[in-house]
Amino acid sequence: MGRYDIAIVGTGPAGVSAALTAKNRNKSILLIGRKDLSNKVIKSHKILNYPGLPDITGEELVLAMREHLAQMDIEITEEQVTNVYAMGDYFALQCAKEMYEASAVILATGVMPGKLLPGEEANLGRGVSYCATCDAALYKGKEATVLGYSQKEEDEAAFLSEVAARVYYVPVYKEEPEFAASNIEVIRGVPKEIRRDDNKSVLVLNDREVVSDVVFVLRDSVSPGQLVPGLETEGAHIRVTRDMKTNIAGLFAAGDITGDPYQDAKAVGEGNTAAISAVKYLAELARK
Amino acid sequence: MGRYDIAIVGTGPAGVSAALTAKNRNKSILLIGRKDLSNKVIKSHKILNYPGLPDITGEELVLAMREHLAQMDIEITEEQVTNVYAMGDYFALQCAKEMYEASAVILATGVMPGKLLPGEEANLGRGVSYCATCDAALYKGKEATVLGYSQKEEDEAAFLSEVAARVYYVPVYKEEPEFAASNIEVIRGVPKEIRRDDNKSVLVLNDREVVSDVVFVLRDSVSPGQLVPGLETEGAHIRVTRDMKTNIAGLFAAGDITGDPYQDAKAVGEGNTAAISAVKYLAELARK
Repeated sequence: MGRYDIAIVGTGPAGVSAALTAKNRNKSILLIGRKDLSNKVIKSHKILNYPGLPDITGEELVLAMREHLAQMDIEITEEQVTNVYAMGDYFALQCAKEMYEASAVILATGVMPGKLLPGEEANLGRGVSYCATCDAALYKGKEATVLGYSQKEEDEAAFLSEVAARVYYVPVYKEEPEFAASNIEVIRGVPKEIRRDDNKSVLVLNDREVVSDVVFVLRDSVSPGQLVPGLETEGAHIRVTRDMKTNIAGLFAAGDITGDPYQDAKAVGEGNTAAISAVKYLAELARK
Repeated sequence: MGRYDIAIVGTGPAGVSAALTAKNRNKSILLIGRKDLSNKVIKSHKILNYPGLPDITGEELVLAMREHLAQMDIEITEEQVTNVYAMGDYFALQCAKEMYEASAVILATGVMPGKLLPGEEANLGRGVSYCATCDAALYKGKEATVLGYSQKEEDEAAFLSEVAARVYYVPVYKEEPEFAASNIEVIRGVPKEIRRDDNKSVLVLNDREVVSDVVFVLRDSVSPGQLVPGLETEGAHIRVTRDMKTNIAGLFAAGDITGDPYQDAKAVGEGNTAAISAVKYLAELARK
């Protein structure tokens, strides 16, 4: 496996742009994210202001970017990054399936849709978890609630149901989930809060409460402060300088996660700048 | 003519991107620059990292951007902006041919190739000028030197020769200038310095000195501090915030002029952000 020069987390426009520039500068890169790239871009009906590609749909932009990655021989690793640890002169990326190492990291995970639930951040690691694959073993024979923000989280719930005694699945989307396992119960409702009561985790919905041993909150992106211990944030955003540096040396950020405007062109520009800054950082590291 | 919402100076990737986004937000825009867009981009042999347009030449990128502007019905005004004045709640753009007004301005003029000549800035307005069209009348019957950084400056020299008694033309490029007028003398040399001596302007070349009443320094772009009185700069660059604000309210900057990396993707991102910031500024202005 070895250590990568630059790990890029996220495959939206910012992550793709960072990967293209880093690869172009002959760096070894690990690009982690969805192989079909950004769901948010795909859902854009019309993009009129991405220079050079007039009047395109989000799907067309994503397709063009996928072709670009393929032309540059850049592969995407489909993983869920749960934590990024600054180890001094390198970073450890704890993922659901494996651990990776990189000398520099660019976070381009997008901005979390909506706000955190009240009680979510406070109880994280104490009955609230962001990663079913990582923490399933802790709930063997117990009851778990999964708050799923997209259909792909159904796989996580199905995996959990093989370990846990019972799984309550609360979908935050329209489509009707289908599970083969009989120990998964689908519950509809609007999530309002998470609290701990009597060593149980309570997911408060608009019209009822779901009580179990843990609530897995499964979104496409995780709050950046949770992802990287010690990272300076400003609300849902990472604080960055004009050259996309965060407060942690060697860690850069780009795209929606650094703040609005939430625009493809802006994200692409920041990914480009972040990659150049990471390349400079690697050169400094090599001189030490 | 009326007052434009946003004047955008420069038709490189940053200016084009700003124009597309501003137009997309239904603002009236004045886009000033070269109709064939950025000479610097055109001369790029290969651009590998502009996301969505894999493996293109600079010419292809410029062509794609020209088509994009055409599709959005955005016209380019070919003018030379000599000064931008902040008038309080609007800006006056002094150009070679006309004066324009706009509520907000985005500077995307690119970075000046090379450094200012010693003595250039100090003597500006006192025997050194950036605009032949503007100042020709002042040198009627006198001698003028033109330092031309590109072939298109030959037109300026030809125009000057109709007014001035004699014109010395120093080309800073390879092609051989051709003039019909007999009072233009072409002098080859490497410019080193400009100084004033006995009320004459002396252009110091590597192997001789050219003495006349004025030196016109004609580059594609002008130093930003000269363009806008009171603008905070950092060397050749304009100081901007993350949202592309300069120190002057309503004045924004984007692209190479804000600093490196000098990359198309970065420029496009900044143009996008600058346009969004300008739109926000206009909304604030309207509330006052």
